[in-house]
Amino acid sequence: MNIRMLIYILGKVLLIEGVLMILPVVCGLFYGESQLFYYIILAALYVGLGFAVSAKKPKNMTVFIKDGCVATALSWILLSVCGCIPFVLTKEIPSFTDAMFETASGFSTTGASILTNVEAMSHTSLMWRSLTHWIGGMGVLVFLLAVVPMAGGSNMNLMRAESPGPSVGKIVPKVRSTAKMLYLIYLAMTVAEIVILFACGMPLFDSVCSAFGTAGTGGFGVKNDSFASYAPHIQWIVAVFMIMFGANFNFYYYLTTRQVSKAFKMSEVKVYLIVVAVVTGIICFSVRNLYGSFGEVIRHSFFQVSTIITTTGFATTDFDLWPTVARFLLLVLMIIGACASSTGGGIKIARFQIMFKTIKREIHTYIHPRTVKKIHVDGKTVDSDIEHSVALYFFIYLITFAFSMFIVAFEGHDLVTVFSSVAATLNNIGPGLSMVGPTQNYSFFSAVSKWVFIFDMLAGRLELMPLIVFLNPSTYKGMIKKPAKTRS
Amino acid sequence: MNIRMLIYILGKVLLIEGVLMILPVVCGLFYGESQLFYYIILAALYVGLGFAVSAKKPKNMTVFIKDGCVATALSWILLSVCGCIPFVLTKEIPSFTDAMFETASGFSTTGASILTNVEAMSHTSLMWRSLTHWIGGMGVLVFLLAVVPMAGGSNMNLMRAESPGPSVGKIVPKVRSTAKMLYLIYLAMTVAEIVILFACGMPLFDSVCSAFGTAGTGGFGVKNDSFASYAPHIQWIVAVFMIMFGANFNFYYYLTTRQVSKAFKMSEVKVYLIVVAVVTGIICFSVRNLYGSFGEVIRHSFFQVSTIITTTGFATTDFDLWPTVARFLLLVLMIIGACASSTGGGIKIARFQIMFKTIKREIHTYIHPRTVKKIHVDGKTVDSDIEHSVALYFFIYLITFAFSMFIVAFEGHDLVTVFSSVAATLNNIGPGLSMVGPTQNYSFFSAVSKWVFIFDMLAGRLELMPLIVFLNPSTYKGMIKKPAKTRS
Repeated sequence: MNIRMLIYILGKVLLIEGVLMILPVVCGLFYGESQLFYYIILAALYVGLGFAVSAKKPKNMTVFIKDGCVATALSWILLSVCGCIPFVLTKEIPSFTDAMFETASGFSTTGASILTNVEAMSHTSLMWRSLTHWIGGMGVLVFLLAVVPMAGGSNMNLMRAESPGPSVGKIVPKVRSTAKMLYLIYLAMTVAEIVILFACGMPLFDSVCSAFGTAGTGGFGVKNDSFASYAPHIQWIVAVFMIMFGANFNFYYYLTTRQVSKAFKMSEVKVYLIVVAVVTGIICFSVRNLYGSFGEVIRHSFFQVSTIITTTGFATTDFDLWPTVARFLLLVLMIIGACASSTGGGIKIARFQIMFKTIKREIHTYIHPRTVKKIHVDGKTVDSDIEHSVALYFFIYLITFAFSMFIVAFEGHDLVTVFSSVAATLNNIGPGLSMVGPTQNYSFFSAVSKWVFIFDMLAGRLELMPLIVFLNPSTYKGMIKKPAKTRS
Repeated sequence: MNIRMLIYILGKVLLIEGVLMILPVVCGLFYGESQLFYYIILAALYVGLGFAVSAKKPKNMTVFIKDGCVATALSWILLSVCGCIPFVLTKEIPSFTDAMFETASGFSTTGASILTNVEAMSHTSLMWRSLTHWIGGMGVLVFLLAVVPMAGGSNMNLMRAESPGPSVGKIVPKVRSTAKMLYLIYLAMTVAEIVILFACGMPLFDSVCSAFGTAGTGGFGVKNDSFASYAPHIQWIVAVFMIMFGANFNFYYYLTTRQVSKAFKMSEVKVYLIVVAVVTGIICFSVRNLYGSFGEVIRHSFFQVSTIITTTGFATTDFDLWPTVARFLLLVLMIIGACASSTGGGIKIARFQIMFKTIKREIHTYIHPRTVKKIHVDGKTVDSDIEHSVALYFFIYLITFAFSMFIVAFEGHDLVTVFSSVAATLNNIGPGLSMVGPTQNYSFFSAVSKWVFIFDMLAGRLELMPLIVFLNPSTYKGMIKKPAKTRS
């Protein structure tokens, strides 16, 4: 393992985190809040330490896939640990476990919260809390790649470990320019949302925080009732932006690089929009008698569908009170998730597409046993390697899910709470059903369960493998030199 | 498609069903019940019709894999439809949907019931109901194969479609002798259980019905409280026999053919016993305060674990009242299921073994990207074909599960009821949790949901693919001759 390179990457990550803390400082200055001093001190500390560690480039900048996984896992742990310290110091979230939960929830774009009263927080800390969503959405290593040049395959190995979905990074051979372009698109869309929300009458602070929460498909809000008290047209705007951030970013990449026909051929985006439309339709039907007008029915249905399928986690209504079929569909959407290469979580539409095509081929081989067929998505052949790892992904996902439920179940809450709290954290959504419904929070769980959720949130964001490789002892085999055997 | 052969197989199946109806007739004679007349008439009708249709052997006895799936699906539908008619005629289950539910539940060895008062049924019908479990356990086509000689690969294609697990029929090249041997072992173990139960003081009728329910891992009982009112030693005997019938039958095959070392090398059986022991231990701990003595705690825990992992569905206590962690573990056992090549349902231990080994290899390729490793189970290399179809199985299973839940959810029952009713039928268990808990039944569901369950029970028993191929329109492509195009 290339340890010097690992330290270099971690140093850069810390440096970036320190620089980003300037935003809450600015916010604190604006509102004249005393909390900003902690952010100033920490920002200085992180920048200084990060700079000291990563000033000298290592000679060997090669990152193998194993190193990429370890670097990614450690970067995200470092981000969360260092990101949670201001909450502890300002005493707004005095418990380390709770602060860590909140920060991991932020960076992983989950949006699950242990806060019982969001509105009691300082603007400074709320801004930092929402900013973690924005950083986590596109990924800090992708940002690093956009800025720091690395050796050939190393870029890919880092980007693959951090970016969601089975097919990332294939759009252009130059990973660096892709990373830059993705961040520019991301930034532009976020700014657009801030401007539109502000123009439509939302306060600037709320606009910025909401846009961060939407862009990262995170879900932290600045109000105790999430989006329920905002005006209907604000809810519509946010719902549409959620859908946009849940779409495959290659779509926007193709649009900006004027490959319009390629963009509109992307079947994943089509399937994604069809799922949104169909499920919204069914839910409209299911909740038709719960609201005063048809407009309200369609607004609440669409908002909740887009918040759940994109794994954002805002809410305009308490969907835990909806009929069983609507709640069940939301649970399914939680697990399906958004598009690959978006900021959303879940298993991702692309994986389901590949699995459905594999089933179709399997049935075909029952009927015509002697033919061999390859699977194609958008005209491209799906490598049998990818096909294989997609199938495996489902299984690893299930095992992680079951094991998390097992530990959380010891607390004795009802099964819907246990199931949906794991679903909501592993898929980076935030609110679940029953005791973790949209009007509830995660404060009542024991510390053990909270650490399970912290693991699930990070594992879900990094799509399992990096954390599993990081935790696997054989990753480090050969690193510690064995003492030479002496003959007896 | 070989239609003549299909009709021949269906005829034989009907013939077998008619012959088997002699057992309830004997039982009816013994108890002097009038219901037996319906069974006599139907038995005569089925035997006559079956004989007429299958008297002449078709010249071409080849069964391709596609034909095997269709034959298997149709055989099981025929069995269920013809098997439910006595219940309708005797007016003991007047509704056709209910009777079909009960019979499909019987043949698929599920044991889910719509009866609110089992003890009100005639002995004749109870005997038939339990006998369906016994037939369904080992499979009627496997029985057919043991009796009727067929062309080369045809045996395999039929046996593969009906027998559970990813690796069946590999023990000996001669499918026919395997089928015979399996049925002999099955019969011997059933008789042993009847004798032991009767010797330990259970009435003969109860012994026979209970043994049928255990052998097929079905779960239909003859008492309203299942096994709660039987003596503790009876409960122990049945629990041990359930575990035995849930083990891979190749184990017994090796034992009877004196390949003892091979038998004890079978890792699936070992894993199965370890899972039983570990889960029993955790549940004992979890329910330690619910019963009067430690003996009771261990008896109820072990009985419930063996009834659920083998997907039998008997009960000695209302486990729906157990703590969350115990109920969650039972749900997991429902989905894991018993061993491959046993009479039990669920996904099967062997599939989990293969998937875990695949994950291990996948992690290995992250760490050593250039090595290619094959998976081995019990020293044998797992074909990449099998590996692939196991991964697919999980996915098809999930889709079937989700789609069933979606339809059942429309009824508006709580999510635990919806989830566990689908789990309990698709995995051929019987009782679930909440409204379908061990003291409840399925009578309250709408007809639509009941048909979903009927589909799930048969699909679960046949392990999905046969029914999917049967329902796929392209299976029948080319069967209906297109009218020759005329030039216009």
